[in-house]
Amino acid sequence: MKRIKCIVAYDGTHFQGYQVQPNKRTVQGEIEQVLAKMHKNQQVKIYASGRTDANVHAKGQVFHFDSSIFMGEDRWVMALNALLPEDIVILHAQYVANDFHARFSNHGKEYRYRILRKKERDPFLRNYTYHYPFPLNLEKMKQAMKILEGTHDFTSFCSAKTSVTDHIRTIESFTLIETAEELVFQIRGNGFLYNMVRIIVGTMLEVGAGKLQPENIPAILEGRDRSLAGKTVPGHGLYLWKVFY
Amino acid sequence: MKRIKCIVAYDGTHFQGYQVQPNKRTVQGEIEQVLAKMHKNQQVKIYASGRTDANVHAKGQVFHFDSSIFMGEDRWVMALNALLPEDIVILHAQYVANDFHARFSNHGKEYRYRILRKKERDPFLRNYTYHYPFPLNLEKMKQAMKILEGTHDFTSFCSAKTSVTDHIRTIESFTLIETAEELVFQIRGNGFLYNMVRIIVGTMLEVGAGKLQPENIPAILEGRDRSLAGKTVPGHGLYLWKVFY
Repeated sequence: MKRIKCIVAYDGTHFQGYQVQPNKRTVQGEIEQVLAKMHKNQQVKIYASGRTDANVHAKGQVFHFDSSIFMGEDRWVMALNALLPEDIVILHAQYVANDFHARFSNHGKEYRYRILRKKERDPFLRNYTYHYPFPLNLEKMKQAMKILEGTHDFTSFCSAKTSVTDHIRTIESFTLIETAEELVFQIRGNGFLYNMVRIIVGTMLEVGAGKLQPENIPAILEGRDRSLAGKTVPGHGLYLWKVFY
Repeated sequence: MKRIKCIVAYDGTHFQGYQVQPNKRTVQGEIEQVLAKMHKNQQVKIYASGRTDANVHAKGQVFHFDSSIFMGEDRWVMALNALLPEDIVILHAQYVANDFHARFSNHGKEYRYRILRKKERDPFLRNYTYHYPFPLNLEKMKQAMKILEGTHDFTSFCSAKTSVTDHIRTIESFTLIETAEELVFQIRGNGFLYNMVRIIVGTMLEVGAGKLQPENIPAILEGRDRSLAGKTVPGHGLYLWKVFY
């Protein structure tokens, strides 16, 4: 058996998230179905860097699996893409050591969140950005973003539904990319809690709108209470951009 | 009754074309439904610059209608957008003279056709570009494009299904926009026959691939026979970009 690491992109619009669920269309489900087809209907389980929620996109999700089939790395890309649906594409395949694990070997991730700033909604971007046409104070937002960088207990920025108990994470960088029509949050860290990016972005929008002040952020962190932070923004603006190994 | 001219953009992915058809989701059908709602369930017919086919997009389609409701132009934009589905957006509304007609008053249109040149398909662009990763000789294509400019009988570049009998049209300009990952055909003319842009683009790709030579184009035009030209490329790469008045 050889272990293969794949980089995969997917349009999350028509998936009920990454992780397999009975009777639901999921990214993992589609990929495992293709791998089973390639392995004489034997189940081949894939292991990703982590889950993504319904409607969340990936530009560079990573997963691994073990296979007894041997073929060149480029062949794996072609064979998988030939069978996968149009909203999933394998960008890269690579043989890795048998102790490589997509989830446990990664030492960080980058997410991006796209906000559409145009006055009218854009039919072409409705599934790919969050439309927020209201005024935002970018300077205040950048001050608040600076405060979130570093190592903190992110309990206030984590869905109460989580089962994880250690809520201490490090945000290595948190920046804004400003384009003509969009504002893109770029966030890198060593790990992210459930809904953490979407709650952080929602909180930054409340700072931008003047409902919260940058000075409130330290107390929100210290309060360790989800209800102190802002709303969770929709999944369709979020991209798992890159996983670092 | 006042006449209102609207500029509308739509993502054609989930429409079976522009024109109303029974039991099918169409752009005209959705807009007329919203207008009926605004007019106490009275039917309000809209007149567009022309039809677009299933999966074809519009960045600047134009239609007009007559209404007894009076409100400011910006209010029309807001009211319509509040009721329209997410894949249609009104970009502009304007009161016009009662002899304005979206179809008969226009003196030309611009279409664009997007070709994705990346090696792997892109899940995010699957409905918005035509993926063509094979080699293309752009110089030969540009020579062929030059020959198509001007006034010609475009019978060979028109679906045999058309009912129109006059096939003489003028292409005012036909150019290529080259970006990092795409090749975009930009074509302006005084009028377009059924499937004309898609057949022209399909023929240009055959020139780029070396299956046809630029020198063959005059004979294809003169032959007035659809079977002489190239294949019709898919609708999802096509955009009605602008209508000129």
